Amino acid sequence: MPSYTLYYFNGRGRAEICRLLFAAASIHYNDERIEFSEWTQFKTKMPCHMLPVLEIDTEMKVPQSMAISRYLAREFGFYGKNNMEMFKVDTICDSIFELFNDYMVMFNEKDTPKKNDLQQRFVYTSGRVLPYLEKTLEANKGGSGWFVGDQMLVCDMMCYSALENPVKENPNFLKDYPKITALRTRVLSHPKIAAYIKKRNNTAF
Amino acid sequence: MPSYTLYYFNGRGRAEICRLLFAAASIHYNDERIEFSEWTQFKTKMPCHMLPVLEIDTEMKVPQSMAISRYLAREFGFYGKNNMEMFKVDTICDSIFELFNDYMVMFNEKDTPKKNDLQQRFVYTSGRVLPYLEKTLEANKGGSGWFVGDQMLVCDMMCYSALENPVKENPNFLKDYPKITALRTRVLSHPKIAAYIKKRNNTAF
Repeated sequence: MPSYTLYYFNGRGRAEICRLLFAAASIHYNDERIEFSEWTQFKTKMPCHMLPVLEIDTEMKVPQSMAISRYLAREFGFYGKNNMEMFKVDTICDSIFELFNDYMVMFNEKDTPKKNDLQQRFVYTSGRVLPYLEKTLEANKGGSGWFVGDQMLVCDMMCYSALENPVKENPNFLKDYPKITALRTRVLSHPKIAAYIKKRNNTAF
Repeated sequence: MPSYTLYYFNGRGRAEICRLLFAAASIHYNDERIEFSEWTQFKTKMPCHMLPVLEIDTEMKVPQSMAISRYLAREFGFYGKNNMEMFKVDTICDSIFELFNDYMVMFNEKDTPKKNDLQQRFVYTSGRVLPYLEKTLEANKGGSGWFVGDQMLVCDMMCYSALENPVKENPNFLKDYPKITALRTRVLSHPKIAAYIKKRNNTAF
């Protein structure tokens, strides 16, 4: 097993899906958290000048949160059993990522008029993506299990982690989506995820 | 072999990477192009109300351009030979997608001040992503072949297709990136890609 270091800011953000994958697989990694004050200096050391970055065996550093997530999901068995399952997993992850990315961009915007525009965009994307996720869940055994097949995969974990802030800010955010709500509770009840959530840092994003 | 239909607007845009994959694999598909005037009516028939959508055997319709691309790349053998190669392919594709997405959002914006902001964002992302791509190419046999391994993969095709408009608009766009420039020429010279490009519709985006 290689040694893994995950670099990110001291927040859940774009790295949390990777942390959930490590937790679900019970794989050790170094959880390196960079303070914003260190970022300007640290940035040029990171490929593509972004975080998260995954370092493997202190030999290679690789950026892009979703590429890292897919790598870990394949490595740890959370990506589906065949190409069609992987296709479904990818489509769900990419749809959730759209919503999540709109949220993160809005969250980081300081200028009020721009933030309002981005809020509208987030609401619009939610109106497209959430009904699609609800229907996709319903299509797999009536929505009483997981998104794809019969075990928790990266798309289920993503549905939990990407919606944490929107749901915290607005407890009614998922009120029209009972299947998504129940799926997120199932992820949270997974013994390894539950144990991780209990001990993790409590951060604003 | 299933029957494939790819739905998109009459443009290259977010669907062209899928079309290149079909072309490189010599696989037949129905290339359904929707006029913008039909979109409002057509939209609600599409999962997640977006395009492109891939229909397989008239039974399932799946959205998300990059999820479709990864599915086709796995199916047709353009995704690398093992998890580490796939990780590299994904990271390169996701980095190019960032740049491409910034371009597409800017391209579609009608409001001039907003378009200027988005142009700045595109320039910033280019300054992060292009040097990373150039270095990544150099790290594989000095940059004289492909991004990963020794054959053309989805990331190479993406590097060609996602940068078509920026390069057409500004012939100096890649002047500091000789390895990327040469890679794009290699993709364009691939017999199956060259044959496809020669016969495809000539569209503005």
